[in-house]
Amino acid sequence: MKSIIIASTSTLHGGSYLNYILPALQLHFKNCTTILFIPYARPSGISHEEYTQKAAEAFASINIKLQGIHEFESPEKAIQNAEGIFTGGGNTFLLVTQLYKNNIMQLLAEKVKNGTPYLGTSAGSNICGLSMQTTNDMPIIYPPSFQTLGLIPFNLNPHYLDPDVNSQHMGETRETRIKEFHAFNAIPVLGLREGSWLEVKGNKITLKGSLKARLFKQNQNPEELEPESDLSNLK
Amino acid sequence: MKSIIIASTSTLHGGSYLNYILPALQLHFKNCTTILFIPYARPSGISHEEYTQKAAEAFASINIKLQGIHEFESPEKAIQNAEGIFTGGGNTFLLVTQLYKNNIMQLLAEKVKNGTPYLGTSAGSNICGLSMQTTNDMPIIYPPSFQTLGLIPFNLNPHYLDPDVNSQHMGETRETRIKEFHAFNAIPVLGLREGSWLEVKGNKITLKGSLKARLFKQNQNPEELEPESDLSNLK
Repeated sequence: MKSIIIASTSTLHGGSYLNYILPALQLHFKNCTTILFIPYARPSGISHEEYTQKAAEAFASINIKLQGIHEFESPEKAIQNAEGIFTGGGNTFLLVTQLYKNNIMQLLAEKVKNGTPYLGTSAGSNICGLSMQTTNDMPIIYPPSFQTLGLIPFNLNPHYLDPDVNSQHMGETRETRIKEFHAFNAIPVLGLREGSWLEVKGNKITLKGSLKARLFKQNQNPEELEPESDLSNLK
Repeated sequence: MKSIIIASTSTLHGGSYLNYILPALQLHFKNCTTILFIPYARPSGISHEEYTQKAAEAFASINIKLQGIHEFESPEKAIQNAEGIFTGGGNTFLLVTQLYKNNIMQLLAEKVKNGTPYLGTSAGSNICGLSMQTTNDMPIIYPPSFQTLGLIPFNLNPHYLDPDVNSQHMGETRETRIKEFHAFNAIPVLGLREGSWLEVKGNKITLKGSLKARLFKQNQNPEELEPESDLSNLK
């Protein structure tokens, strides 16, 4: 049975890394002593080692060990043997490129579909959708494909940001960008605000956290979803 | 001799389409009666026809006719015969995909390098750099390559946005995103604020408009450039 947490962000403003979601993670990974960390997204370009160290410190507070996938000779075996998996945020183009390059995109999808508990934050959440085409990230590297894990039958926009009504900036709002996506794609897109996450248990998908999420469907007006909304039938 | 205007945006807050830059465009296109418009970037997903109509209205005020490239049977011939060319903003992934699909990326580069006056705004400016890898746009479609026209020997970030010091949003700032680009790429990136443009005359590149621009180089602190700065030696 799938068991997945898909979080908009790792960190809330003023908080420390993963702090706001630690109680949920403690339950989520309760049967794990060690978790495999995928640091490929490298936020701000930090190294795999630095990033793994940062994540390990947060997990130490709930008595779970973390091991970076880069420490293994075979990334495939690391995935196959993992008790639990956490993919951190950063740049989605880089993350997806590395997953393909190491030949583990499909393997990771199968492993999580078969029940290994998974946590994604930000870029690590983006890849849970059908494609990475609703990421906010900069295309700093050219991935072999935009297709991702497909753990849920729709796409995500993490760090969803409402338009700033006082802004004088003329760059596209997030909503405009998602509308452009829907000019060419029929996949629904869920805008997950920082502090929200999706809980996936088997085929049940539930919106968690205290905030509403914004749902975009092709040729329809966006819709605000309340916390605890059931998204199991969204596709 | 190259003659190019590379503008951060088509429109300033509170202004109408291209209005702020029309005096410069009147000079730039003074030998043209008709300009070829490339509407492929389709902002907000509007049609080629709607977009061309919008641009034509702005150019009518300086007595220049506009013809959309989609109106021609052969996009290649349309480029070859153009007196002047304007590529509008919208989604850079879509624009680049269409330029490759219609087999005109290289042709357009050659045409502009040979002296046909060119105007780009936003996405149409992004493609003037070496690659589209510092765009702000969403990857709504998978282009065959991220390589672009290479009319200038560096990359651009149009609609450059300074970090909002009061923001509680944890998504990456523009500066962080460009730093991630520089973790993997040595190409300089010029952040062009809305209202700024580059004027290219032969090998001379000058920052125009009343605002400073922000220059990012790999492994260096960002630098603020004054209006009228000479960028001819940047690479």
